[in-house]
Amino acid sequence: MALARVSRSTLRRSEVTVNNMFNEVPTKHNFSTPSLANATRDGNFSYLSGIRKANNASLFSRGISVVPHYQSPVAERIIDESDAECEETRYPGLEATRPSEKPRVVVLGTGWAACRFLKGLDTKIYDVVCISPRNHMVFTPLLASTCVGTLEFRSVAEPVSRIQSALASNPGSYFYLATCNGIDTDKHELYCETVANGGLPHEPYRFRVAYDKLVIAAGAEPLTFGIKGVKEHAFFLREVNHAQEIRKKLLLNLMLSENPGISMEERKRLLHCVVIGGGPTGVEFSGELSDFIMRDVCESYSHVKDDIQVTLIEANEILSSFDVGLRQYATNHLTKSGVRLMRGVVKEVHAKKIVLNDGTDVPYGLLVWSTGVGPSDFVKSLHLPKSAGGRIGVDEWLRVPSVEDVFALGDCAGFLEQTGRPVLPALAQVAERQGKYLVESFNKIGKQNGGKAFSAKDVPFGEPFVYKHLGSMASVGSYKALVDLRQSKDSKGISLAGFVSWLIWRSAYLTRVVSWRNRFYVAVNWATTLVFGRDNSRIG
Amino acid sequence: MALARVSRSTLRRSEVTVNNMFNEVPTKHNFSTPSLANATRDGNFSYLSGIRKANNASLFSRGISVVPHYQSPVAERIIDESDAECEETRYPGLEATRPSEKPRVVVLGTGWAACRFLKGLDTKIYDVVCISPRNHMVFTPLLASTCVGTLEFRSVAEPVSRIQSALASNPGSYFYLATCNGIDTDKHELYCETVANGGLPHEPYRFRVAYDKLVIAAGAEPLTFGIKGVKEHAFFLREVNHAQEIRKKLLLNLMLSENPGISMEERKRLLHCVVIGGGPTGVEFSGELSDFIMRDVCESYSHVKDDIQVTLIEANEILSSFDVGLRQYATNHLTKSGVRLMRGVVKEVHAKKIVLNDGTDVPYGLLVWSTGVGPSDFVKSLHLPKSAGGRIGVDEWLRVPSVEDVFALGDCAGFLEQTGRPVLPALAQVAERQGKYLVESFNKIGKQNGGKAFSAKDVPFGEPFVYKHLGSMASVGSYKALVDLRQSKDSKGISLAGFVSWLIWRSAYLTRVVSWRNRFYVAVNWATTLVFGRDNSRIG
Repeated sequence: MALARVSRSTLRRSEVTVNNMFNEVPTKHNFSTPSLANATRDGNFSYLSGIRKANNASLFSRGISVVPHYQSPVAERIIDESDAECEETRYPGLEATRPSEKPRVVVLGTGWAACRFLKGLDTKIYDVVCISPRNHMVFTPLLASTCVGTLEFRSVAEPVSRIQSALASNPGSYFYLATCNGIDTDKHELYCETVANGGLPHEPYRFRVAYDKLVIAAGAEPLTFGIKGVKEHAFFLREVNHAQEIRKKLLLNLMLSENPGISMEERKRLLHCVVIGGGPTGVEFSGELSDFIMRDVCESYSHVKDDIQVTLIEANEILSSFDVGLRQYATNHLTKSGVRLMRGVVKEVHAKKIVLNDGTDVPYGLLVWSTGVGPSDFVKSLHLPKSAGGRIGVDEWLRVPSVEDVFALGDCAGFLEQTGRPVLPALAQVAERQGKYLVESFNKIGKQNGGKAFSAKDVPFGEPFVYKHLGSMASVGSYKALVDLRQSKDSKGISLAGFVSWLIWRSAYLTRVVSWRNRFYVAVNWATTLVFGRDNSRIG
Repeated sequence: MALARVSRSTLRRSEVTVNNMFNEVPTKHNFSTPSLANATRDGNFSYLSGIRKANNASLFSRGISVVPHYQSPVAERIIDESDAECEETRYPGLEATRPSEKPRVVVLGTGWAACRFLKGLDTKIYDVVCISPRNHMVFTPLLASTCVGTLEFRSVAEPVSRIQSALASNPGSYFYLATCNGIDTDKHELYCETVANGGLPHEPYRFRVAYDKLVIAAGAEPLTFGIKGVKEHAFFLREVNHAQEIRKKLLLNLMLSENPGISMEERKRLLHCVVIGGGPTGVEFSGELSDFIMRDVCESYSHVKDDIQVTLIEANEILSSFDVGLRQYATNHLTKSGVRLMRGVVKEVHAKKIVLNDGTDVPYGLLVWSTGVGPSDFVKSLHLPKSAGGRIGVDEWLRVPSVEDVFALGDCAGFLEQTGRPVLPALAQVAERQGKYLVESFNKIGKQNGGKAFSAKDVPFGEPFVYKHLGSMASVGSYKALVDLRQSKDSKGISLAGFVSWLIWRSAYLTRVVSWRNRFYVAVNWATTLVFGRDNSRIG
């Protein structure tokens, strides 16, 4: 109870600060200027209260006026605060670093952006704390292959402690399996909750972590457009356990459809795999499924091989970001492989059928939803500036303006309108490039003693981040892939489709998988699938 | 409702028949005589009723008197039966084979016995139906290694359709992912239920399967001795998903124990891995855990490496079936590796501690229970003759006497007292040898047209099954193993311990893993672990 109250009131407090900054005095913002605060830190023992004074001072000094706490409109809020103040000590956590200690970088997330950042961080300069509900990075472009057994699950998961070994071994560095549910940018503190099921003294177990620098790379969530039933009945394809669930369901349906006495209609429903969304993930998954059906279902489930069907439903065109020739190629290829392409908009999802906007019922046995991503509830809950589309707003240096020492990158971040730049697409290569850029900046400012909280004001941040698109790739099954090397949708450039592209696709991914161990495993998996076919044990 | 009633009444009906045979007229039994029924089958269209007449006739002809149905003591039973008779047609299923069709062998289970049987079955002679809640065989001796990431889960699982490809491809052969919950030996029929979560029209979905020959190889269940809390809080180690759950819990505890603010007491509890039972599984798991701690925890979880502890609790002596020298070696080796050996009997199990009989509390974070196996509820529910220990009683030919065309093998079967032979231990090598023996008998009698129901009476069954123990092996961690080549506990013979034994252990297992694919994967996994260490991604 007490913990919950602290958390609530703390959040409310930061809300006051940040809300006031952005809603009440927007005209004084100057987002793109990389001016940093000139406040210095108080002594260690008075840190908790000192930091707030310093912070308020710094905000004023940056030309941003803040409504002081004692002017809060609701009296209850003040009572709550003093109440919280007393209880603060009960909250276990990592205290702010002392002047003699290394500065602490806290990274939220273990996706492409976070892991590329972690990998490059100079741990002689920084201590690093990574907080995420999963302890591994997922090699997302190959995730679709694991659903049908082409690749093992573990080949596409890279433990974060192998990406940055300091997390496992350095005395001041940690990995916490937890979710963050609040940030107090004033106090430079995060509020976290461990994942459940731990049998800890209090569940959920809450703690706080003080940071010198905060890197938010917490990713995005699948978009469901508020369509009824999606969350209950559809599978997403973002995590390794999503792939595990899809695999289990697919194999279960194959086996159930062989049961004696199942009607033909029911069997056809069980074996109807519907993919919603014609982006690269949807297309790659459809391609993998059709490969699986053509090669493995015919062999391992020959009783039902004629009743299995893959349908890809897309509201507009598949692979809309690709060159028109490649789109045509993909359409032809998928159709030839037995994938039914269907135009349609989903209205609602039921346990055994989806209903389209035009009233059509589509019965299904397996439904995979991949219609892109949008801001997560966590990102929505943060009272930080936002970009178009609701992502955390950043300047050209990937800093969140108006709060100090906070950075955002990857799918959860987007350039603010004021920067005059477009919000970048939610792609692995964007995230990876941003991680690389930011960690280089961090290592540079760290060497110039800018690593501690409020200390980087005089340290030049260097060149702003510039994204250059290297091209897009997507496999479409049967040893065929698309490679589009144009820098943007409207520019000219090389585009390829077919077997050579597939070779490029495989080699590109093979060299990009983070560790040698996983590179080796992916190669072994691919070779084994080629020789022995796909595994079809249903575990769990 | 109707289905449930049919199932109930059907079961009760077979209970009448079998119960009567065994409880009311035990003196007339003559278990070890391989006399077979001389009843012939009626025409196909009158099969459902015809079979019962034939069956009763055959029972009489074999010198076993049965109380006819109309003499059943409770009138309700007769009403129920006629009720069931009417509804029988609603029950979907595989009908009995016609004379023109191949005889159908139904195999219950996918363990060592069942899979060895399936592998050897001549599918030119027989159609085969395999019914099991899992679609793969588990290579149990290597299961402990998967918990800590030495091996991948899939390397120890062999899909049953790869063991016997007819299941996937032959028109009359099937694999059903289901559990059997009743056998009508009169009607030569099984009653099954699909595993849940399928979204089928009726859940659980029930069906029946008629057999010509039935092979029960449904395995055993972990013994809990009725101790309170075991099923709720302890992990078993019998299936791949058990290993997955153990792994998830172990990695979760390692991560949770690093959380800020966790007290030393709580941390020590979280990191206390307790293994109950000092048989080969318990010892191998303890050995794997200590390897994992010494090599990987020190590297990947160095913040907590001094607080992790493995305790092996055994009521008597560890590895009691092994040579006394080997036992001593194992005790010394485990102790040296940091495993605490403790004598004790568990009284009850709570969520965070176990209480021993002497009143000691043992707090734990992970509890693995491996105190041997006993008859499953399914085996207990069958009204068939039982061996000492409650297994399905068989004669020297692995036939269940007094019912026709039913065979039992592996952990669920035991020699009847009348055979004068001891019940064999629940070991993979016993099960595998029995599977091999029985399938050879089947192929032989099949060639002599003895495959159909009630047709094997004049076909000689050949030599009885004789078990010759080839020796026992157990690994104890750090590249050390025990090899005991004595044929029984009291006989003399060669016994080895150390690195050479470990090489023998690895090579023996490597050549026993069923498919080349998995042999290859196990070798690759072992090599990768040696080079890169164990994987510690926590998936799911």
